[in-house]
Amino acid sequence: MHFFVTGCAGFIGSNLTDRLLQDGHTVSGYDNFSTGLHEFLTLARKNPNFNLITGDLLDRDLLTHSMKNCHFVFHFAANADVRFGTHHPNKDLEQNTIATFNVLESMRANNVKQIAFASTGSIYGEAPITPTPETAFFPTQTSLYGASKLAAEGLIQAYCEGFNFQSFIFRFVSILGERYTHGHVFDFYHQLLKNPDNLLVLGNGKQRKSYLYIQDCLDAVLCAVLNAKEKVNIFNLGTDEYCEVNDSISWICDYLKLSPQKKYSGGERGWIGDNPFILLDCTRIRQLGWQPRLTIQQGIMHTIQYLHQNPWVMEMRS
Amino acid sequence: MHFFVTGCAGFIGSNLTDRLLQDGHTVSGYDNFSTGLHEFLTLARKNPNFNLITGDLLDRDLLTHSMKNCHFVFHFAANADVRFGTHHPNKDLEQNTIATFNVLESMRANNVKQIAFASTGSIYGEAPITPTPETAFFPTQTSLYGASKLAAEGLIQAYCEGFNFQSFIFRFVSILGERYTHGHVFDFYHQLLKNPDNLLVLGNGKQRKSYLYIQDCLDAVLCAVLNAKEKVNIFNLGTDEYCEVNDSISWICDYLKLSPQKKYSGGERGWIGDNPFILLDCTRIRQLGWQPRLTIQQGIMHTIQYLHQNPWVMEMRS
Repeated sequence: MHFFVTGCAGFIGSNLTDRLLQDGHTVSGYDNFSTGLHEFLTLARKNPNFNLITGDLLDRDLLTHSMKNCHFVFHFAANADVRFGTHHPNKDLEQNTIATFNVLESMRANNVKQIAFASTGSIYGEAPITPTPETAFFPTQTSLYGASKLAAEGLIQAYCEGFNFQSFIFRFVSILGERYTHGHVFDFYHQLLKNPDNLLVLGNGKQRKSYLYIQDCLDAVLCAVLNAKEKVNIFNLGTDEYCEVNDSISWICDYLKLSPQKKYSGGERGWIGDNPFILLDCTRIRQLGWQPRLTIQQGIMHTIQYLHQNPWVMEMRS
Repeated sequence: MHFFVTGCAGFIGSNLTDRLLQDGHTVSGYDNFSTGLHEFLTLARKNPNFNLITGDLLDRDLLTHSMKNCHFVFHFAANADVRFGTHHPNKDLEQNTIATFNVLESMRANNVKQIAFASTGSIYGEAPITPTPETAFFPTQTSLYGASKLAAEGLIQAYCEGFNFQSFIFRFVSILGERYTHGHVFDFYHQLLKNPDNLLVLGNGKQRKSYLYIQDCLDAVLCAVLNAKEKVNIFNLGTDEYCEVNDSISWICDYLKLSPQKKYSGGERGWIGDNPFILLDCTRIRQLGWQPRLTIQQGIMHTIQYLHQNPWVMEMRS
């Protein structure tokens, strides 16, 4: 098959691209390199079945032209910066909501009918039910990021009804592993590299978070795309556990053999819109036969090893 | 108080404007007259407390400038055309989602912190539960209109969390009464005026729909704004009944003393995205003391009388 991958140079998008190419597919990858890295495409670019388009999703003409002859779209490009949403509210609107609209319109122009979309557990806001299932309640948004992803989901669903598309919508917990470049684990590692004696923790450190290892995430995505048959297929993706921010700190410190002085900014939330407890009910995707291979702790260890072995990633992000 | 009303020349917006002025408030009304009518503002324009700004919500500079010194925003402007969403998908995105973003950003620039928003029962899609309560399940969008309103709701909620706004979100059933200019009742009346012998009905006529009379709607909106105290306040607004499309046809025909030949396009749905059963659970707003004064049948009769007495409305919409 010929896949179109938006955000092909991003953390998840580049790993997905490698996986699809490895499975023998053709991939047209689209990225504006605003946060994506050329280094993440080193392997893909050696593959004759890979075609890179450098472009922005707000450039609908280029997008529509680039999607020609593709069969299926993985829309994985996004502004993934949850924490600083209130600093620049237009960013989530443009790069998540309007970008998704452009992807859908380009699909319509090219008669491409299937889309897989990287949504987020953040759309549940502060969920009244944990573990949170896909259908349990009408959520209230607590972040511009969550709101923009909810808007994108709604658009995709309306296109399924109105234009006979089929969609696979994935509500991720935080994903980590090789090429991971932002979030708690990255921040802690980054701080400790610069100053091994002190660590600033946003919130009280007791926020309960869920993580999923990137290769487990991709297994789940491909399992769903192969097996789910509804018009709109929505899946939570995570492990069945959570950890406290303090747990991940102690695992990282153990690995690095450090005992920094911890300073907490205090409060249940690390920032406005931070969610103090994320745990998704992933029964639905498990019923298709998927299960994660790594625990949260193992996923964090893989991530720290990767960052340790690839110091250039830290340098590029600093 | 000094209110800012978007869509002040529309069906609901103009009735709201009249009500606010009648209650002694000052109103700055904003409309681009794409569907609003100057005739609906005849009363308002005689009031020295009314100030009309002709502008588009996509013109953020004008919007921000116009909102100066206002205390509270009623955001009632919208593309309200549910049925033809798939004919021009950009319209819902621009006039509902992006327009709402612009309203929120203009509020932020003017330090206005309270917003009432005209949302819709359409965001529930084809609800698995009827009567449908505000919080019962995560909806799936079946129309671009619903998707765009859901996106707007999400944005408003995120601004409440991120920028300390307070919001009043109203999920309306179909509203009718004086100045009503589109929807089933309008279409049937319009058809029968042109040809009293034949009536084309989209779907099988058995779609179950809910309607609320405009003055009852405004009572509920003002009741909520005065009494609801949460950061995000969401209310379904409707009566506790529904009627079949066939019921409304027979009431209209009785009123007009006509017995047209009915032709049905067939199917459970009148068009792609049409919802075969809309009934909202309005317990929450009733708990604040509100109740509707007119039944659905009485609301439809008021509407037909209004259209009968104001033939210019039909002419302008034909």
